Amino acid sequence: MKLSPLQTARYQYTPKLPGMLRNGISEICVKNGNATESVADQEKIAAQFPNTYGKNEITFQKGKNTSEAKKQVVGVILSGGQAPGGHNVVCGLYDALKATNPDNVLYGFKGGPSGLLEDDYRILDDDYVNQFRNTGGFDIIGSGRTKLETEEQFAVAAEVCKKHGITAIVIIGGDDSNTNAAVLAEYMAAHNTGVQVIGCPKTIDGDLKNEDIECSFGFDTATKTYSEIIGNIERDANSAKKYWHFIKVMGRSASHVALECALQTQPNICLIGEEVAAKKMSLAQIADYIADSVAERAAKGMNFGVAIIPEGIVEFVPEFSVLIAEINELLAGENTAKFNALPTWKDKYAFIEAGLTKESMAVFAILPENIQQQLFLERDPHGNVQVSLIESEKLFSALVKDNLAARKAAGTYNGKFSTLHHFLGYEGRCAFPSNFDADYCYSLGYNAFMLIQYGYTGYLSKVSNLSKPADEWVAGGMPITKMMNMERRNGQDKPVIRKALVELDGKPFQYFAEHRAEWAVETCFTYPGAIQYFGPAEVCDLTTRTLALEKA
Amino acid sequence: MKLSPLQTARYQYTPKLPGMLRNGISEICVKNGNATESVADQEKIAAQFPNTYGKNEITFQKGKNTSEAKKQVVGVILSGGQAPGGHNVVCGLYDALKATNPDNVLYGFKGGPSGLLEDDYRILDDDYVNQFRNTGGFDIIGSGRTKLETEEQFAVAAEVCKKHGITAIVIIGGDDSNTNAAVLAEYMAAHNTGVQVIGCPKTIDGDLKNEDIECSFGFDTATKTYSEIIGNIERDANSAKKYWHFIKVMGRSASHVALECALQTQPNICLIGEEVAAKKMSLAQIADYIADSVAERAAKGMNFGVAIIPEGIVEFVPEFSVLIAEINELLAGENTAKFNALPTWKDKYAFIEAGLTKESMAVFAILPENIQQQLFLERDPHGNVQVSLIESEKLFSALVKDNLAARKAAGTYNGKFSTLHHFLGYEGRCAFPSNFDADYCYSLGYNAFMLIQYGYTGYLSKVSNLSKPADEWVAGGMPITKMMNMERRNGQDKPVIRKALVELDGKPFQYFAEHRAEWAVETCFTYPGAIQYFGPAEVCDLTTRTLALEKA
Repeated sequence: MKLSPLQTARYQYTPKLPGMLRNGISEICVKNGNATESVADQEKIAAQFPNTYGKNEITFQKGKNTSEAKKQVVGVILSGGQAPGGHNVVCGLYDALKATNPDNVLYGFKGGPSGLLEDDYRILDDDYVNQFRNTGGFDIIGSGRTKLETEEQFAVAAEVCKKHGITAIVIIGGDDSNTNAAVLAEYMAAHNTGVQVIGCPKTIDGDLKNEDIECSFGFDTATKTYSEIIGNIERDANSAKKYWHFIKVMGRSASHVALECALQTQPNICLIGEEVAAKKMSLAQIADYIADSVAERAAKGMNFGVAIIPEGIVEFVPEFSVLIAEINELLAGENTAKFNALPTWKDKYAFIEAGLTKESMAVFAILPENIQQQLFLERDPHGNVQVSLIESEKLFSALVKDNLAARKAAGTYNGKFSTLHHFLGYEGRCAFPSNFDADYCYSLGYNAFMLIQYGYTGYLSKVSNLSKPADEWVAGGMPITKMMNMERRNGQDKPVIRKALVELDGKPFQYFAEHRAEWAVETCFTYPGAIQYFGPAEVCDLTTRTLALEKA
Repeated sequence: MKLSPLQTARYQYTPKLPGMLRNGISEICVKNGNATESVADQEKIAAQFPNTYGKNEITFQKGKNTSEAKKQVVGVILSGGQAPGGHNVVCGLYDALKATNPDNVLYGFKGGPSGLLEDDYRILDDDYVNQFRNTGGFDIIGSGRTKLETEEQFAVAAEVCKKHGITAIVIIGGDDSNTNAAVLAEYMAAHNTGVQVIGCPKTIDGDLKNEDIECSFGFDTATKTYSEIIGNIERDANSAKKYWHFIKVMGRSASHVALECALQTQPNICLIGEEVAAKKMSLAQIADYIADSVAERAAKGMNFGVAIIPEGIVEFVPEFSVLIAEINELLAGENTAKFNALPTWKDKYAFIEAGLTKESMAVFAILPENIQQQLFLERDPHGNVQVSLIESEKLFSALVKDNLAARKAAGTYNGKFSTLHHFLGYEGRCAFPSNFDADYCYSLGYNAFMLIQYGYTGYLSKVSNLSKPADEWVAGGMPITKMMNMERRNGQDKPVIRKALVELDGKPFQYFAEHRAEWAVETCFTYPGAIQYFGPAEVCDLTTRTLALEKA
């Protein structure tokens, strides 16, 4: 395979470790912190994790390495969607493992958690690992979405570990994968398998974040890549002065990605799902809010703009969730066949009208016809509406168009409204990691091995103080159970890591809220440009605006 | 407006001039070259340009500046779609103009050629120009698509120039705009207005290229930006191993952008419109070609891939062009109303079936229904099919899906085929110009002023030897008429600059053709990453693969 010049150049990059890990393996010792308890539901969580609950937080510091000298055989798994920097987690883990003892072995389980269950692996060596240093993607061993959560799976996993003499598993994943890592750790401890389990916080969505995890890896690079593209589109809009661009960005459960991109690019509009939910906004209210910006800009002669729409936005609109629930009910059981048998859309529409409540029908009625049809015609194997398929960027531009037509008829608007649509997701999940993500990920992996070496299990590799230069970063470990609470999942109470939503009283949203009125009407676009790896520090070593504001 | 760190850093960049222009204005003299003639239709073109035809090619060299000392008042126009580097053309022009005589004045006509006709301008000064150095976009003065082509417009332009004492106009545009620049130059000369006209070659499409113009500006940055994104998507495909990505890239008239992106990223498939036309390929043949790759990769366990589709591809498919022509005819005159009155799509389909030839009906029949409907339901004000609205990336993925279903039924294919679609256009037209485009554009603008200062008109600012380091670049001017031939446009023979198509016997296509069989079946993806401005020369100072291969 021909390598790009950038890939070749990035091989030369040496990721920066936290200062306390820079003195060589022999000079890393443990500093014990406080015993921990879960953020909520302490008794229930303690009961579920009798062997791993309540352990101490720890940090590493410079000092004589007192860990036990034994051969480590570690397995590593990449779980879920790609995030820039995953390769560096593996590289950091590999380097610490080999530096500690050249006889240590690293198994890479292929294609995600299923690789462990199917005993499908590759033993990693220098030649192979070196091809992936400071690169994007998860192609080093592949990833997958199999969930490791049942006792049966754990038993298989234990068997595979026993077969290879594996002493520890590192799971690189999001909130669900790390929840499962904690459960697996408990299983391994309860069954005296001798297998430790360590998690690493990954997700471009930014929703794996709490008082212990300042940010998940990949968020930095992905949002910078999206912001590069959004900035380019903004500059195009401001040059051509004839289009409104509706840009959907990834992030279904939370709007961190949209917010960070807005902070970087200062668009006219950015919707935040958490705010929509908190204010119980209707589709019509949202459309009206956007149309206000379009109309005010048009009055100033600016018939162009940029709006950022989070992928999951409609799921935050209360009336829309009710509509979806009613549709799912309306089509349950035999009704699906009855509905499908109706010959024309007109017949189907009458069926829908008869079946929905008046309130939901009012919401349904304002949707563009293609989205109305999509809600009924494209359903998942369980017969449910596939909300994720809804093209929310097109939905809102259509609603705004209708709103503006009403304003035009009323004589309150006299502009032009031409739209273009974009969706940014796959474009940023496998970018070359920024210097920040390259450093952070390498540190997470290196640190994960030190946690293994010191015998910890059920811990998350934790690197903090991230808004500061890397030599001031703090490396250590936190029991995963500390981040847990009980939540209802599929009809059962389960201990899970709480997903971090955008906090409406947090500094990043507050900054946005203070400025958006001006951004909506004026043209305050900022053009971040492409991620730079070699330039001046003020360009190359930036953290996200979100992190900078949170730590300000 | 808050500036991004990259924008602030890019202000510090000093664009590189060709060696011969580096000694200061007082040390630039003219070296006369040969008299020129047009590439074809010499007599007809000479007859149309009695005052500007047949002039000498010139280059600049180091030597005493012998130009006449007079105050220059220059107007500059950005014409057509955005291309990275346009700002630097203006900056180079401004710097040479002011260095020659601080009393010289630069008018920026706003919003494209219409700014000249409407006398809408901004006088450029240091404070304003400095905000745009080495940045993307055309927002310094805006751009527009008004064509300057009628005698009436020329008369207005002459009037505006007279009013402000303008001595020269610089038109920054594509092949049409430069054709019009030549016609305007001839008008200005024939009417003794004393106004010179100079063109600069702009277009991300890469189709303004000939033996004199090695490349148009913006092609380098735009294709690098698209290739960054394509590479990221490739890496995602190769990590998740479950999707085929169909990526449409801008470029309606020629497939240079698609080809350059393919050379940079080595996708499994890249369609080239010029080849499709030359081989008279049918839609079914193209789908079969792509399906071969999908099936062969599936047989190796790789149910994923990347296909690049040029925006204008269907217009190169002969049978499709015939179909479009038949549809336009079928709906001419009163038939549109008759067709629209038919109540259901079934009725309309019967009407279509009765009206098309058997051959075109066969083509129509294999199209996905949404594209069938689009062809009939969305027409331009003249009643014509809007070919540019056809989502060719979705068309081909749908055709491939049908093809694979037939293979599956025949037992020759047993894979999975899940698709995702992307369109890359606005994402790259306003990126920060690469070092190459920043240097090339600044040189084009600087050089344009030297042509003005030495009294030339109807010339294109020409900078060549571009595959070499900038100090070896050659700056000069070429009469625009030299690039012209006669072509039929709107029922009339007109002198125009010939549009450059991808040459199937040229080195870039040949390189692609030699490698694509391997790329189709193996995974040979290359990941270019983001454009770098500050790093090692082998990363930052690359030209396009197209130019490198052409000059190899």
